[in-house]
Amino acid sequence: MDKQTIIDISFMREALKEAEVASKLGEVPVGAVIVVDNSIIARGHNLRELTGDPTAHAEIVAIRKAAEVRKHWRLTDMTLYVTLEPCPMCAGAIVQARIDRLVFGAYDPKSGAAGSLMNILQDKRLNHQLEVTAGILADDCGKILKDFFKDRR
Amino acid sequence: MDKQTIIDISFMREALKEAEVASKLGEVPVGAVIVVDNSIIARGHNLRELTGDPTAHAEIVAIRKAAEVRKHWRLTDMTLYVTLEPCPMCAGAIVQARIDRLVFGAYDPKSGAAGSLMNILQDKRLNHQLEVTAGILADDCGKILKDFFKDRR
Repeated sequence: MDKQTIIDISFMREALKEAEVASKLGEVPVGAVIVVDNSIIARGHNLRELTGDPTAHAEIVAIRKAAEVRKHWRLTDMTLYVTLEPCPMCAGAIVQARIDRLVFGAYDPKSGAAGSLMNILQDKRLNHQLEVTAGILADDCGKILKDFFKDRR
Repeated sequence: MDKQTIIDISFMREALKEAEVASKLGEVPVGAVIVVDNSIIARGHNLRELTGDPTAHAEIVAIRKAAEVRKHWRLTDMTLYVTLEPCPMCAGAIVQARIDRLVFGAYDPKSGAAGSLMNILQDKRLNHQLEVTAGILADDCGKILKDFFKDRR
């Protein structure tokens, strides 16, 4: 396993911790962390139900926090880790924030916009493209979602 | 001109007023209003530079306000009016919020996701589709953007 993959797994475990927090709150368990220079600058988990905010997906929560820390909307040189493939809204937000690299866990065949249904992150017609690494801890990231929906039935 | 178009023009004028506020603040002039039962429930204009929030496009600002008013993320039966065709992030947010209908002014050939580059609002693979009306006051909505960028050069 190369060094970058070992680093990616380590940060994806942190994103999974955020997903676990969401799960305990009764939110669909998706978690994210944003990393710059190998340290976490922002964390987020899905908060749609508790906040009543349709944009409060894990990625957007983390992006807004990272922008607060940086005091600028342009998040160049940051890597976003998220347990589930981003939806079109979140993929679009990642492009808007000029994030450098996306690492995600499980694919989302129903609404994924980083390769499944479309790929907003690598569309040359848009004004920003980024590197995407998929499938880091995919089984763990998928399992927490499956368990959540199984328990709810 | 049919009755619905007259109503649409009237609300697009309100969205233009929001774009004018953005312009005066030095923000790219895009404005939005959200309407339910023919009255405005939320207004928003682009605030990306002033807030430093990459997600603070007019549509998202208005959607978050409408969700606060409704105290729920699901904005069924609402119509969003925006002066410029939504980008992928905003089109995705409109789908996430389950908005009923989108009316926009000018097309955005560079990043529009309501027909120009893609159509996220009417993608049958996603779990929500909506009615889209384009080109209401398109000239006025485009002119405020052109004037803004001309003045900045």
